[in-house]
Amino acid sequence: MQRRDFHRLSVAAIFGGLLARQASAHHAPGHGAGGTAAATRNQRDIASSTQAHLDAIGRHEAFTAFPKATIGLVVYPGMFVQDLVGPLTVFEALLNREIHLLWKDRTPVDNAQPGTPTLLPVTPTTTFDACPERLDVLFVPGGVPGTLAMMEDPDMMAFLKRMAPNSRYVTSVCTGSFILGAAGLLEGYRAASYWAVADLLSELGAIPSDERVCVDRNRITGGGVTAGIDFGLKIAADLTSPLYAQAIQLYLEYAPAPPYDAGRPETAPAEAREFLEGMFAGLRESTTAIARRVRAGA
Amino acid sequence: MQRRDFHRLSVAAIFGGLLARQASAHHAPGHGAGGTAAATRNQRDIASSTQAHLDAIGRHEAFTAFPKATIGLVVYPGMFVQDLVGPLTVFEALLNREIHLLWKDRTPVDNAQPGTPTLLPVTPTTTFDACPERLDVLFVPGGVPGTLAMMEDPDMMAFLKRMAPNSRYVTSVCTGSFILGAAGLLEGYRAASYWAVADLLSELGAIPSDERVCVDRNRITGGGVTAGIDFGLKIAADLTSPLYAQAIQLYLEYAPAPPYDAGRPETAPAEAREFLEGMFAGLRESTTAIARRVRAGA
Repeated sequence: MQRRDFHRLSVAAIFGGLLARQASAHHAPGHGAGGTAAATRNQRDIASSTQAHLDAIGRHEAFTAFPKATIGLVVYPGMFVQDLVGPLTVFEALLNREIHLLWKDRTPVDNAQPGTPTLLPVTPTTTFDACPERLDVLFVPGGVPGTLAMMEDPDMMAFLKRMAPNSRYVTSVCTGSFILGAAGLLEGYRAASYWAVADLLSELGAIPSDERVCVDRNRITGGGVTAGIDFGLKIAADLTSPLYAQAIQLYLEYAPAPPYDAGRPETAPAEAREFLEGMFAGLRESTTAIARRVRAGA
Repeated sequence: MQRRDFHRLSVAAIFGGLLARQASAHHAPGHGAGGTAAATRNQRDIASSTQAHLDAIGRHEAFTAFPKATIGLVVYPGMFVQDLVGPLTVFEALLNREIHLLWKDRTPVDNAQPGTPTLLPVTPTTTFDACPERLDVLFVPGGVPGTLAMMEDPDMMAFLKRMAPNSRYVTSVCTGSFILGAAGLLEGYRAASYWAVADLLSELGAIPSDERVCVDRNRITGGGVTAGIDFGLKIAADLTSPLYAQAIQLYLEYAPAPPYDAGRPETAPAEAREFLEGMFAGLRESTTAIARRVRAGA
């Protein structure tokens, strides 16, 4: 248990803010039930449920007695939303945390993949310039084609180089490790990435790993996309306690039951693997070319 | 294989659109590398990678020869973002699909949970009024306290009652099944929900199930939060083929490796379970009260 400090949550303050938001949502135009007796009863039930929820949290010191975790999640155009949302969902379950979605400016970043439009643009909360000086977690999601652009993006590279020495954990999921690697942050470190390109991390001086979550000193890197949930729980355990991480796992009902055993190239049907290998052949070539250029210039 | 029709993707059209977007992103202010020789080489590498990606997709009839799936995902204030993003991530991996994020209007919906602010507001793409007449998938995510409000929201109830008979699959994840149930859509159906409240589905005439993904006729309901990925793969297999669903599983590297066996109340440490049961005691009371009121009025 890394219990270095004690911060009791101000449950009353949170509760007050939440009720205010709910009340305004219920009176907003288009919210349907607003103003009727049924809506009033509904709102009373929600308030009662919410108060019980927050009171219960306040009573459990085993889950509230941790120092505040300051978490910075980098976002960028062309990232993969699940890479961000998996870890974010786990981090949001920490009771005492401050979370920043970091980018150059605060305009929404799209997350188009090849052939698909953006359905969930992500709005940064904090600019690189306004990032706290010290982070407990510096996190970079993956995503194609965004990763390729970020590997040669001067602002992103400068930000990561500046923040890494001031971050307790320097982390990524999926192809995000290529962005860390391009910033020179994985030189001599074991690191994981997306299965289709993980071996190419060697082009950036890293030692490729096919672990779901790879820990080497303070570099913690996850495998592809859905590994972000496993990754998030590992980080949560380090920030709080194994018991707390288990409570988050139950909170998210994370008892996965994939319908097939096809999540890794070794186990997927050959036709599925070959289809994706064909899709990613160009990505491998471009990643290699960019990695070599970055390293030659480093 | 439910191969009823043949729609070859217009790879060239998608590719053209993507390149145009990337070019504009690279020339936008603040994108850093814009204008330099390095940026030009980077952009050329990305374009080459993207073209190879889309060309490879176009060559694989086993993955492109499916009819278009029209998918409507309801969003609402107080939902849980991972409940939406898990299934959405799977559905976006279908090559031939049309996806709608449905709500009363197109203003962003917050997703505050008790005690946490909204970090990723979701912007609806389509209003209830503009929803296509027929859906392949009608989907409702869960989330507290949003679920409680939606169970008595006249617009939401009217929309679900109207669309359910015109939807091939009527589906949910987590507490979303309570919203379906409140609309009378689970009467006599087996259905899954979030572990902490699943048994209360009986208040709405459903037969509670603790399956990860519960299929009863065309009602397909998932367990809590992270069950959305397992759920999505089941739906994807039904819409296309088991091979296609396996390709998506590999695409998302879904080979989960939770650090603990704590994702269900039967396996979690007692202290974690009791903490969460305390948090959700008020939710159980309010859900019961609302369900009884809804059913009495039905």
